Amino acid sequence: MTEKSPKIIYTLTDEAPALATFSLLPIIRTFTAAAEISVETSDISVAARILASFPERLTESQRVTDTLAELGELTLDPSANIIKLPNISASIPQLKAAIAELQSQGYDIPNFPDEPATAEQREIRDRYSKILGSAVNPVLRQGNSDRRAPPAVKAFARKFPHSMGKWSPASRSHAAYMKGGDFYSSEKSTTMQDDTDVRIEFVAKDGTVTVKKELHLLKGEVLDGMFMSAKALRDFFEDTLNDCKETGVMWSLHVKATMMKVSHPIVFGHAVTVFYKDVFEKHAELFKDLGVNPNNGLSSVYDKIKTLPHSKQEEIEEDIHACYAGRPEMAMVDSVKGITNLHIPSDVIVDASMPAMIRNSGQMWGQDGKPKDTKAVMPESTYARIYQEMINFCKTNGAFDPTTMGTVPNVGLMAMKAEEYGSHDKTFEMTADGTMRIVNAADGSLIMEHQVEKGDIWRACQTKDAAIRDWVKLAVTRSRQSDTPAIFWLDKERAHDRELRAKVEEYLKEYDTDGLDIRIMSYIPAIRRTMERLIRGMDTISVTGNVLRDYLTDLFPIMELGTSAKMLSIVPMLAGGGMYETGAGGSAPKHVQQLVQENHLRWDSLGEFLALAVSLEELGIKENLPKAQLLGKALDAATEKLLENNKSPSRKTGELDNRGSHFFLGMYWAQELAAQDEDAELKARFEPLAKALTDNQDTILKEMSDAQGHPVDIGGYYHPDAAKTSAVMCPSATLNSILANFKAA
Amino acid sequence: MTEKSPKIIYTLTDEAPALATFSLLPIIRTFTAAAEISVETSDISVAARILASFPERLTESQRVTDTLAELGELTLDPSANIIKLPNISASIPQLKAAIAELQSQGYDIPNFPDEPATAEQREIRDRYSKILGSAVNPVLRQGNSDRRAPPAVKAFARKFPHSMGKWSPASRSHAAYMKGGDFYSSEKSTTMQDDTDVRIEFVAKDGTVTVKKELHLLKGEVLDGMFMSAKALRDFFEDTLNDCKETGVMWSLHVKATMMKVSHPIVFGHAVTVFYKDVFEKHAELFKDLGVNPNNGLSSVYDKIKTLPHSKQEEIEEDIHACYAGRPEMAMVDSVKGITNLHIPSDVIVDASMPAMIRNSGQMWGQDGKPKDTKAVMPESTYARIYQEMINFCKTNGAFDPTTMGTVPNVGLMAMKAEEYGSHDKTFEMTADGTMRIVNAADGSLIMEHQVEKGDIWRACQTKDAAIRDWVKLAVTRSRQSDTPAIFWLDKERAHDRELRAKVEEYLKEYDTDGLDIRIMSYIPAIRRTMERLIRGMDTISVTGNVLRDYLTDLFPIMELGTSAKMLSIVPMLAGGGMYETGAGGSAPKHVQQLVQENHLRWDSLGEFLALAVSLEELGIKENLPKAQLLGKALDAATEKLLENNKSPSRKTGELDNRGSHFFLGMYWAQELAAQDEDAELKARFEPLAKALTDNQDTILKEMSDAQGHPVDIGGYYHPDAAKTSAVMCPSATLNSILANFKAA
Repeated sequence: MTEKSPKIIYTLTDEAPALATFSLLPIIRTFTAAAEISVETSDISVAARILASFPERLTESQRVTDTLAELGELTLDPSANIIKLPNISASIPQLKAAIAELQSQGYDIPNFPDEPATAEQREIRDRYSKILGSAVNPVLRQGNSDRRAPPAVKAFARKFPHSMGKWSPASRSHAAYMKGGDFYSSEKSTTMQDDTDVRIEFVAKDGTVTVKKELHLLKGEVLDGMFMSAKALRDFFEDTLNDCKETGVMWSLHVKATMMKVSHPIVFGHAVTVFYKDVFEKHAELFKDLGVNPNNGLSSVYDKIKTLPHSKQEEIEEDIHACYAGRPEMAMVDSVKGITNLHIPSDVIVDASMPAMIRNSGQMWGQDGKPKDTKAVMPESTYARIYQEMINFCKTNGAFDPTTMGTVPNVGLMAMKAEEYGSHDKTFEMTADGTMRIVNAADGSLIMEHQVEKGDIWRACQTKDAAIRDWVKLAVTRSRQSDTPAIFWLDKERAHDRELRAKVEEYLKEYDTDGLDIRIMSYIPAIRRTMERLIRGMDTISVTGNVLRDYLTDLFPIMELGTSAKMLSIVPMLAGGGMYETGAGGSAPKHVQQLVQENHLRWDSLGEFLALAVSLEELGIKENLPKAQLLGKALDAATEKLLENNKSPSRKTGELDNRGSHFFLGMYWAQELAAQDEDAELKARFEPLAKALTDNQDTILKEMSDAQGHPVDIGGYYHPDAAKTSAVMCPSATLNSILANFKAA
Repeated sequence: MTEKSPKIIYTLTDEAPALATFSLLPIIRTFTAAAEISVETSDISVAARILASFPERLTESQRVTDTLAELGELTLDPSANIIKLPNISASIPQLKAAIAELQSQGYDIPNFPDEPATAEQREIRDRYSKILGSAVNPVLRQGNSDRRAPPAVKAFARKFPHSMGKWSPASRSHAAYMKGGDFYSSEKSTTMQDDTDVRIEFVAKDGTVTVKKELHLLKGEVLDGMFMSAKALRDFFEDTLNDCKETGVMWSLHVKATMMKVSHPIVFGHAVTVFYKDVFEKHAELFKDLGVNPNNGLSSVYDKIKTLPHSKQEEIEEDIHACYAGRPEMAMVDSVKGITNLHIPSDVIVDASMPAMIRNSGQMWGQDGKPKDTKAVMPESTYARIYQEMINFCKTNGAFDPTTMGTVPNVGLMAMKAEEYGSHDKTFEMTADGTMRIVNAADGSLIMEHQVEKGDIWRACQTKDAAIRDWVKLAVTRSRQSDTPAIFWLDKERAHDRELRAKVEEYLKEYDTDGLDIRIMSYIPAIRRTMERLIRGMDTISVTGNVLRDYLTDLFPIMELGTSAKMLSIVPMLAGGGMYETGAGGSAPKHVQQLVQENHLRWDSLGEFLALAVSLEELGIKENLPKAQLLGKALDAATEKLLENNKSPSRKTGELDNRGSHFFLGMYWAQELAAQDEDAELKARFEPLAKALTDNQDTILKEMSDAQGHPVDIGGYYHPDAAKTSAVMCPSATLNSILANFKAA
């Protein structure tokens, strides 16, 4: 499959990063062309994925290829070199919005069937299901994860620290999690002795057996089963609400409804129907008829009641308001607009919201727009405990200090859809009391079982042995290369982790770990040790499973750097290729709003700069292309200069934005290449570009600045018009002409 | 020195335990006489120690021998068997009260000279200084410490748990300690390579050298020097007060002015003069003239101004009240009487007050008598951090559950005046800026030095190698005997502890630790691991230095048992003898008040029962006295029965009190001996006693109950009249006569 010409795949995604690409890619291609490296694009946006799912309903010119599938195949190619920008993990409301937009643009795609009744609707629902949530990452992440703060970024943060809210030891904020009845407490786990076919079955009280799923497991694969009790979950929510009512601490829910796309919307829905219990009980019949789905948030109620007579709407709205009297204050997503924590499931995502809260003195925003101490409700105790430990730590030691703290790189077990993040097709909401069990298909023997009740959420997770082996290897490699102690976070009291501990202990023996400090610790001792080292300026690699990978690569970077978007995120593919992810800060919907309303894009492409530099360097090494390595080195130097000179985008309209920042990067990059003496050809080639950019700096910046301040039309949110967007994102005629002339040269 | 006849020394001490002895001792002697064991008394009360200090001023009949010195000598006897009851660690106000009482009883002893001006006064002050604070323990504790919850007591607590205040995760309570400028941050430590004479010297700014102390150190002895900055301390107090004022959290000071009798009164005095800064500044001259000493608490102001004209008194009192406006609410010792935390230095003793606060949902009592979240201010960060860790733990996991929690026995390094508790004669308040240094007396070479400022508190501590060796041995022995993991609490970041870690690592090699789980951990990981095990029902021996010994043997027992008075506290003497300490709960002044006012003594002699049982058992083993062993075994069984049948003293006047509880113990003890078949002689002997006590139970209890409810005269507080007290404490003529007849038999 390998093509001979050196190639980098640059992904087109959604929202702010996709918009930024319209400005950045022309600059990148100007530089890579000089080294005869082609930068190809691959559109994996939600819109593209929707369109690729319904070719038969589109005209020939409307049809798009399934680029995600193509890219997935490429990950198996040893020469793969992919730069992956942040994309939307679509919730159902987001998916519906994208569908509506595409329909309005003349694409004859079907509506999303909320409750598919016919075979056709079920088929449509199935196709859409594959687009929901984190659909991209499982396809592309064909390797484990290597995430770290680039030295330039860390040095910059130490020199120019971001703001950190002070912590009071008298803070009332805390994490609340279930003390029983959750996945943690019911988890069972086993390691396959051989390749094994298994069936996941539900056995009803009357003995009826329903096969829910069949799996082919490989030798050495770890299989888990666990469930969350709906009853325990609802009791837990009620308890936390009552406790907040009593203590006056604000209530806030933190789940991950996007990534945990099957289980967490249900958990979120329970929170909604417990908080607004009176409304949901009083209007139960009506809501059922209307198709209100609490898993989509309270917004679902507001949406569905729109069809009702005005007086009825008012009655329901009054009933909703009446609920607040008996409940504690709830954290707001947007206090001005009255958007609460329970409005939309994708608004508060635990891995981003908790670090933000911790950085903000442990406070979230109340109804009056003021920061308040908060009970951060995270039902799953498995991971929530680490936040409580960090909260306690901040109460005791004060906020982290970015100028002195160490860094926490992560080596994450991610390959082959490891663990919970690969569980969506094996997650089931129970429709009756009974037994969930996993049996060996060959002889029907029982592997594990759970007694469940109607409403419980049961799930199975798989972790491939090959992924674990590679993870252990990557941990040792990173510990050695960076001369940094590493801790495997594996909880002694957790069934799954006990299986992994045994494997890690075994596989570690296969490597030379002489002189390395590699430990295996339960989560709480692990985070505590890591934090104790952190405040003493010492670095510690966290070697974690997939969920903790996700959580920690937001948590620590946000403390260290103020954002996770500045992290290097490398996926060394199992097959040998490399994927360079840029930014973990999401796709930033608010940035798009600002662009459309004021023509200012505050998105910081730093992650792209850093990823591209590593991508070029590794390409250079692999393909023996000294020019590529030189381009990468020069790009890193340009990025450092950019940071030093504070040429990152401002949040304020009228000041330097994403496009201006790209200009500076291009200018510095060209200057670096012009200044170097390693490659005379590149030097000669980039000298005139450096001069042109430097000489025209004022003109270009003025053209860019003049463009700002009024609304612009990019022809769509999920599927913007390419020509319109390009015009908006490349507003400097001078810059455009310099680049065009250079390419032509 | 050893006498041939088996002997137990029972100490006479102060306050409630001393009163209880008047009732208990006749019963004990009734039983021990049957095994031909003599129980001798040794009066080490504050009053006795005062009288022994001034023989030349007393009449022959008034004179007492220096029993403490005698007892100290006995600790060097391998056959020593001493039961040591709690005694007063006298503060200066307590000492003065005792002096006044003795004077009123006709003893011509001198007043305590606050500011000795003449040689005679200095000599008097010197004699009194030896009585102040924990003067008894350093003399008697000629061994390390073995403290544990007796199984019967632990089982009882699990079955009939004491109340535990719930912990809210939203609690604002926390510990506050210095982040610099305290002993912890300045500590230096070194181990002597040989026997060495050293000088502790102060070098003034002008080069003048003053020798503060000369020491003879032994080979292997650990020597520490450290200081607390007065400026940093005062800033710290001011900061904590301002923080409380801002957050509304109550302010509370927790020091140990009794035990740390030189350093902590000074620390306490700084708290007083910072809190009441305006008063002390405004009236500085006057207070100096009056001899106000803030180290004795705000009560010193009230005492000293009594001589002033009424109007001046009122002015000062108004100025004191004005201070409260600018300060946060302060925790009260007695909110009804308006006695605050800063009134008297001995009122709030950290090792007792912090567990009480933690058991009380992290709250202390406010001015309105209501429990409130509290900032527990403990300047020395060395140990205060463990309380913050426990507070965080309780916020996270809820209050400890006595019905399920494990136990934390302690092996404490206590022998030979180890560590800070032996530092009083080497603690100095700086009178000028300069350098404190320790030099080798032989060649004048520098061992360590500190730059200090006027007001700083500098101290040196010694720890003998022989004590450390014995401590390590005792830890291994206890871990082996009880099959319990042990943790040496030694802080990697503390100079002194680093010296000890090296020794412990070395000495551990001398023992068979095969199959034992013995670790060395810093304090915070140590307490965390201990607590994580504790809530899972697992036991962990804490092996600690002397201060942590003291703190932990209150902290954990108060969680586990509701009191530390029920702990077995054994001092296996270095010389081979044994001391059995009863109760760590202090000497309970409130109990005495209740007895005098209502003739009800709520003191629980359980600690005495338990100590006596171990004392008898060990005496039996050592002296080959099966009868002693049997008496001990029967006493343990009687104690279990007493607990099971809830015959411990009630707090309420009119209900069973200390004396009634003693009766039940005696009856059960006799019944056990009558029921056993190991020793026919004892059986025959105790059958009639058991019968007499059982038959007369109602009469005896009625006589005891009738005695209660009105004031009684015991002729003194510190030095009660023996005949009067005996009459009060033995109110049942029936019981007295049964015991007298039995002895006569």
